[in-house]
Amino acid sequence: MQRVNGGVCTVKNIKASGCKNGKHGVGILLTKNCEAAGVFTKNKIKAAPVRLTKKVLRDGKLSAIVANSGNANCFTGKKGMEDAIKMQEITAEKLNLDPNEVAVASTGIIGLRMPMEKIIPLINKASLKLNNSPKASRKFAKAIMTTDTFPKEFAVEFRLKNGEKCRIGGVAKGAGMISPNMATMLSFITTDIDASADELYESLKIAVDRSFNMVVVDGDQSTNDMVLISSTRESGEIDEKFQTALNFLCEELAKMIAKDGEGATKFIEVIVKNAKSSEDAKKIAKSIVSSPLVKTAVFGSDPNVGRIIAAIGSTNCDVKEEKINIRLKSVTDVNIVKNGEIIKSKIPYARKVMNEKEIKIIVDLKFGNSSAKAYGCDLTYDYVKINSEYST
Amino acid sequence: MQRVNGGVCTVKNIKASGCKNGKHGVGILLTKNCEAAGVFTKNKIKAAPVRLTKKVLRDGKLSAIVANSGNANCFTGKKGMEDAIKMQEITAEKLNLDPNEVAVASTGIIGLRMPMEKIIPLINKASLKLNNSPKASRKFAKAIMTTDTFPKEFAVEFRLKNGEKCRIGGVAKGAGMISPNMATMLSFITTDIDASADELYESLKIAVDRSFNMVVVDGDQSTNDMVLISSTRESGEIDEKFQTALNFLCEELAKMIAKDGEGATKFIEVIVKNAKSSEDAKKIAKSIVSSPLVKTAVFGSDPNVGRIIAAIGSTNCDVKEEKINIRLKSVTDVNIVKNGEIIKSKIPYARKVMNEKEIKIIVDLKFGNSSAKAYGCDLTYDYVKINSEYST
Repeated sequence: MQRVNGGVCTVKNIKASGCKNGKHGVGILLTKNCEAAGVFTKNKIKAAPVRLTKKVLRDGKLSAIVANSGNANCFTGKKGMEDAIKMQEITAEKLNLDPNEVAVASTGIIGLRMPMEKIIPLINKASLKLNNSPKASRKFAKAIMTTDTFPKEFAVEFRLKNGEKCRIGGVAKGAGMISPNMATMLSFITTDIDASADELYESLKIAVDRSFNMVVVDGDQSTNDMVLISSTRESGEIDEKFQTALNFLCEELAKMIAKDGEGATKFIEVIVKNAKSSEDAKKIAKSIVSSPLVKTAVFGSDPNVGRIIAAIGSTNCDVKEEKINIRLKSVTDVNIVKNGEIIKSKIPYARKVMNEKEIKIIVDLKFGNSSAKAYGCDLTYDYVKINSEYST
Repeated sequence: MQRVNGGVCTVKNIKASGCKNGKHGVGILLTKNCEAAGVFTKNKIKAAPVRLTKKVLRDGKLSAIVANSGNANCFTGKKGMEDAIKMQEITAEKLNLDPNEVAVASTGIIGLRMPMEKIIPLINKASLKLNNSPKASRKFAKAIMTTDTFPKEFAVEFRLKNGEKCRIGGVAKGAGMISPNMATMLSFITTDIDASADELYESLKIAVDRSFNMVVVDGDQSTNDMVLISSTRESGEIDEKFQTALNFLCEELAKMIAKDGEGATKFIEVIVKNAKSSEDAKKIAKSIVSSPLVKTAVFGSDPNVGRIIAAIGSTNCDVKEEKINIRLKSVTDVNIVKNGEIIKSKIPYARKVMNEKEIKIIVDLKFGNSSAKAYGCDLTYDYVKINSEYST
């Protein structure tokens, strides 16, 4: 498997475009005749575009995606659904497609009507610029950014078991890391694998569970989250090589989201080993990476292992205090907790680790044989600044 | 029912004292021959004093409580339990009590050995100053403070159904509000009600569930949390008047903890009405009050109702978007959301509400008839400052 350029446009016959106007943006992805599947937010209050796109995907066909930034079109009542349908219809009309095959995604402020007078001209403009090029994918990635500080793209090429070359490309947006739940996470993935909508769905679910869902806490998500996968079916048949590549791609995109946490200065990767079950491993990894006390300690480069321990215990998962090992790792690797005891002499070295920009917290529970990874970032003054001044 | 002075010393024959030495403090409460009960953290990793005090309470008798600040004596292995027992034994010896009737509570940093060379002289000193006076209760309350900015005491006098006067007094500490789970919450309550240990336990559990547990998120608590109640049994028999008074006292103490959230500038009370079940009402109230995005919006005086809505939906409780009403209340009272729609014209008034120091968020779900309250505070620059510089 190798990393390639081009984001979503790494796949032949996929076209992308994107335009911005102040804090509003529109990106279009042309996925003509693609087989498609999606996973969506579990939030009980779902934005109009989420409800609409779920309907679009019911028969598995997708011809285009129109995504906007600046307004989430959520909690906007019947008018909100009318606006989402309008976005779908205008895009279909401009591109000569069946509106029932156009997905809509939105991200931005909740509770305000979509400013259609800004969005419609952006759709018109974007629909004229569709192109299959790395630049076009980049423009799409930029158009859907909100508080993101950099566009997020990744693409891979690999060989299926039968030797055929296959590609997967993706873009993502998302940047609110303290409560990943509330910051909308959107991702659009393209591929040429030959798979049915059902096969794509199964494969996507597995990949999302170990990547985006390890940044975005389950059942606690934004009203607008969605991950869509579209396939031109021009390569070989789906097999486990595809799953491995899709997992990898989604993990790389998820890490970018974590690194771009609002106000973040540091990236945190938590690895939990030898938990009783996979569920426990995930819960503990998420508990550590989402603890505000751990996050502020990382910001302050403070090797406050006590907070990691409290976060482990707070999950109610089965652990034995006297078995726990904890390693902190960046440029160096420090075994700061051994068999449930903090090694005081290692604290100065642990502080050195915490000073770095990318920190791994590795917890060995010695209780079973399940593992999990979770991704996050530190909690900083700038997080507070960004979020106390956000709405207009 | 009326508020009275004296904190824990409002009850006759209860003596208190407290001493500080830098960031370490020791408070002693003499509760000779009291009947007692306690509720404890559900964190899987329990500090040594929590495990020890649970054992002390097994036979329901309590003669003293020794509580220290500065070190949590958690994740300290066998040595930690030895230190907790030492604290118990020294206190018993000084006060001529059975060590098995002395409870121990600790709060402070996790993972470092208890500095016994500082704690023992403080126990010795405090054991000489025991007194039944408002000043003594205040000293006890101060000795157990960590990042608390003010001591927390409350006391009430009321009449039982048979006309007899009864008193309840309490002190509390706790100040980490963004993730209430991790900041240790301690509370010690005294009363003269005539009740068995079992009756006290049942009554305390009810009161804690609707007060401290609505600040401190269930199953997600500090390694050291405990609430103890001790009774001299010198007043009349327990009845529902006692429950009402105990609920009220615990709610007042819980509100003080919320108001003293680390770095907090504003107090938030969330009231959820007409939920499907009591469980749902609690979950939704907690979800709103603990959302970092709601908390930063309150800090910025930003009436960002969308974040409240996202927090409601993220619980997975049954709600109907088009039924939801939301009121924001401080000096004025603004119906900002009516039947699932944000009333745009009210935003300037909502902003005025958000500018105040004490804000009520009242959510009417019109879905059932259960209610709940939760307490919290805003998330500020100072929270980040306090917690990124905490450990030594």
